[in-house]
Amino acid sequence: MRLVTFDAGEGPRLGAVVDTSILDLARLGESDGGASLPSDMLGFIRSGDDAWNRARSLLAGAVGGRVAANASHESSGVKLLAPIPRPDKNVFCLGVNYREHLEEANRAANRDLQPEVPVYFTKAVTTIVAPGGPILFDESVTTKYDWEAEMGVVIGRGGKGISRERAMEHVFGYTCFNDVTGRDVQRAHVQWFLGKSLDGTCPFGPWIITADEVPDPHNLHVELRVNGVVKQSANTSMLINDIPACIYYLSRGLTLEAGDLISTGTPSGVGYARTPPEFLKPGDIVEVDIEGIGVLRNPVVDVREL
Amino acid sequence: MRLVTFDAGEGPRLGAVVDTSILDLARLGESDGGASLPSDMLGFIRSGDDAWNRARSLLAGAVGGRVAANASHESSGVKLLAPIPRPDKNVFCLGVNYREHLEEANRAANRDLQPEVPVYFTKAVTTIVAPGGPILFDESVTTKYDWEAEMGVVIGRGGKGISRERAMEHVFGYTCFNDVTGRDVQRAHVQWFLGKSLDGTCPFGPWIITADEVPDPHNLHVELRVNGVVKQSANTSMLINDIPACIYYLSRGLTLEAGDLISTGTPSGVGYARTPPEFLKPGDIVEVDIEGIGVLRNPVVDVREL
Repeated sequence: MRLVTFDAGEGPRLGAVVDTSILDLARLGESDGGASLPSDMLGFIRSGDDAWNRARSLLAGAVGGRVAANASHESSGVKLLAPIPRPDKNVFCLGVNYREHLEEANRAANRDLQPEVPVYFTKAVTTIVAPGGPILFDESVTTKYDWEAEMGVVIGRGGKGISRERAMEHVFGYTCFNDVTGRDVQRAHVQWFLGKSLDGTCPFGPWIITADEVPDPHNLHVELRVNGVVKQSANTSMLINDIPACIYYLSRGLTLEAGDLISTGTPSGVGYARTPPEFLKPGDIVEVDIEGIGVLRNPVVDVREL
Repeated sequence: MRLVTFDAGEGPRLGAVVDTSILDLARLGESDGGASLPSDMLGFIRSGDDAWNRARSLLAGAVGGRVAANASHESSGVKLLAPIPRPDKNVFCLGVNYREHLEEANRAANRDLQPEVPVYFTKAVTTIVAPGGPILFDESVTTKYDWEAEMGVVIGRGGKGISRERAMEHVFGYTCFNDVTGRDVQRAHVQWFLGKSLDGTCPFGPWIITADEVPDPHNLHVELRVNGVVKQSANTSMLINDIPACIYYLSRGLTLEAGDLISTGTPSGVGYARTPPEFLKPGDIVEVDIEGIGVLRNPVVDVREL
């Protein structure tokens, strides 16, 4: 399933993309007297297997069948929101998790960081941007907004002390993140959090694709384009810490919960490590394109234009 | 007002401590036909001035007056929860924000970090511990659990680009935090987040005292004791970045919201920087004692004993 949060004029609702339509899952579920489904993404993820299977079965029945008018929308007529418009905790992020990016970051910072375990930080919930929504450019804060294409992992089953062997059973699905970063803010404040948590710097989406539809998440092409020009091009096979490692280390002492978001780190090709350095500017269009997941496209907008 | 979240057998409710009683604010508000009050702390903080003034007025009327039986509890008969049992985003934390702690941390790490602006990181919402609740000791994760007494600031009015001059108007109140840290986890993972976010490592409380009752938050003695032995002793006058600076830098590019929590950093005297280093062990009792705010007392408990 490609699951979205959409607004067709009634506020945020959970939907599934089927061809050029978006089907409202909770409304589909009202049609046959079966179990009801939550109308929001977080509620749906937390509802577990029974709800997920019910949704699959409703969608299978809807394809080619009759669907109540209030349960189906043309994609072009609705607004997509971030799949989880307001996560209930910060987004877990991985730093320097691709070899060539670690090397370019070390060169740019004139250091030789070689972490033996994953590097985690967070992005504030107030950073989230919808698919198509504006990446906020506020020159009073920084002019060094940089891009970072990342595969996102959505936790479906919580847990603590999760083994590498069973980690993939905890994955609900995958998405795209753009971990936009205020580079000078990131560096000045020593810890990365603040430079990673400026308002409007976490494009997320366009949907969550459920894990059953991504046979091998460790072999996906990841690309980032600015105004159509390729800036990052890599493959998730090049992750230093793969998804089981990300989950294993994170959950050793910290309880993961359904709906938690993990952004798995960015490959090489970020702006500040280029010669000369490049940064985003208002008017730019940034695309995170992950094979088998989707394309997340966002304009950079000066906050004074909003 | 000294505001608590308590459980007298009906689940979490908002209360105010008056002498040896805890008054249930929402229930007090039901007695006179006036505006109703939220029954939870986050809802109350978000309700703003009118609700806060209504609560003050109800408490003034209750002292010496008659109070409905279901609105008053003996403190000894209820369980205190963390003032906000489940924050809706990570706790904002300051690092190395007292001069002598910066120096001891630099010595211990053999570095010379001299940040020009505040250092921010976060603690996961799953770290929160109630007053009196267990600090979790899990030797399968680390045996190097360290203490950090910190004054906590609770945001009452959100905002972005908040000036130093107006920052204090955004403060709802103060509390105590113990930013318990897995020292080796903090260091191994490069960024501090994971070592700061182990389950059961953020004692919080025992209450939030509203700002009107803390005339000068920049002149409060801060002390931490382990089994009655003083380990940290300092004064909030020694903060490198005072509360207005913490809020100013944080809100430059990030929107603060009502109910946000900021832990302002710990003074010198932490365990790992001692000679020889000291760490917490099961059975220890840790007290964070901040003048004019309160005493936050927690035992360290081996997770295998729970």
